[in-house]
Amino acid sequence: MCRRFFVDRPVVGECARLEGSEAEHLIRVLRAKVDDEVVLFDGSGAEFPARVVTIGRSHAELRVLERSWVDRELSPPLVLAVALPKGDRQRWLVEKAVELGVAQLVPLVTKRGVAQPVDRALDRLRRAVVEASKQCGRNRLMEISSPQTLAECFAAAPLGCQRWLAHPCASAQPLRELLQQVTHDPLLAAVGPEGGFTDDEIAAAGPECQLVTLGPRILRIETVALAVASGVALLRQAVA
Amino acid sequence: MCRRFFVDRPVVGECARLEGSEAEHLIRVLRAKVDDEVVLFDGSGAEFPARVVTIGRSHAELRVLERSWVDRELSPPLVLAVALPKGDRQRWLVEKAVELGVAQLVPLVTKRGVAQPVDRALDRLRRAVVEASKQCGRNRLMEISSPQTLAECFAAAPLGCQRWLAHPCASAQPLRELLQQVTHDPLLAAVGPEGGFTDDEIAAAGPECQLVTLGPRILRIETVALAVASGVALLRQAVA
Repeated sequence: MCRRFFVDRPVVGECARLEGSEAEHLIRVLRAKVDDEVVLFDGSGAEFPARVVTIGRSHAELRVLERSWVDRELSPPLVLAVALPKGDRQRWLVEKAVELGVAQLVPLVTKRGVAQPVDRALDRLRRAVVEASKQCGRNRLMEISSPQTLAECFAAAPLGCQRWLAHPCASAQPLRELLQQVTHDPLLAAVGPEGGFTDDEIAAAGPECQLVTLGPRILRIETVALAVASGVALLRQAVA
Repeated sequence: MCRRFFVDRPVVGECARLEGSEAEHLIRVLRAKVDDEVVLFDGSGAEFPARVVTIGRSHAELRVLERSWVDRELSPPLVLAVALPKGDRQRWLVEKAVELGVAQLVPLVTKRGVAQPVDRALDRLRRAVVEASKQCGRNRLMEISSPQTLAECFAAAPLGCQRWLAHPCASAQPLRELLQQVTHDPLLAAVGPEGGFTDDEIAAAGPECQLVTLGPRILRIETVALAVASGVALLRQAVA
């Protein structure tokens, strides 16, 4: 993967400008020179080979050489709704979710959740989305939505969307059985806090949600989320 | 999962003793009292409900109430051979590999690897194995072997063991195709450094190794390792 930079406004026409941390990365970290070639992306799904034209103290101007649509997204799309873990486990979860192709991460507000998602934390996580996208080659940014309850999140899911709820219990179906059912429906998978979802939360999620279990070991929140994302990314994606 | 403690010598008979960091955890962190019940494990595959009998300044004596064999291992076993990433990512990789049921982690010595595995680092990682095993309920410890080259590691694999090499290239097979082939053979999966394995390293791995690709995104070392482990844990395990 060549050097990639995120432009926070749509790239239109032949000129693009890098500012802030992206310019910092280009100028101070990579010590780019005029005429160096890099790749820009703006989250639209396209990427733009571009040449450095001018380098200022805290910005750079580039000439866009080409617009190419390179799709590295999961299909069908996967939405992960997660009761965020604490500390750097949050950042790690976000980085891995981006790498694995998750389309949207919904921070869940749950009764037993330990980390209530505040705006400042979410902004940090959105920055982590950009960093991970630069590294893994995605040209669309994983959306980190505003915090929702399980009921709100499931109610907002599109018609025909499959709904999974990671909840180890007698009536839960092993994830591998679900993964082996090929489908092209979008998928929403919810992962609860360490203490699990309450019965009320599960009831409010609605009857069409499928309880799933991942096996005999007790997995941490981020491990459940990433195992589900890995399973979906490796098995369900229409394109490899 | 109730409070679990690791005993670093085989539990035999009805007395057990906790010392060092495990005693610290029991006495200072959980503030256990005489007659409290906990679960001990010694890495043999069994777990031992036990009652606290005496609490000293830096040790505790317990009475073993029962020996129960509780298998939370993957079957067939999975060995991950990984060119260790840097810093925290090593610890993350180990923690998640334990949670996902990996039987053995082989630190790979590779031409392009950034973190050459030294003894002190490996000892820290072995401590992380114990911590993760306490949390996830495994009664066997994931082995962290001595560092090996890819050739040494593949040569040491048992007869009939499947050999996968994560190496995105034209001739690589999508991982999901391999995961869909049900088998009961043990599996060895190797993950290279950021720069990838060299052609010489791949050639030395031998003709029976299967090159695999995980899809269109550039995944970090630990993400490849965990995605493979998740795929195997979710799809290939004989028991859920």
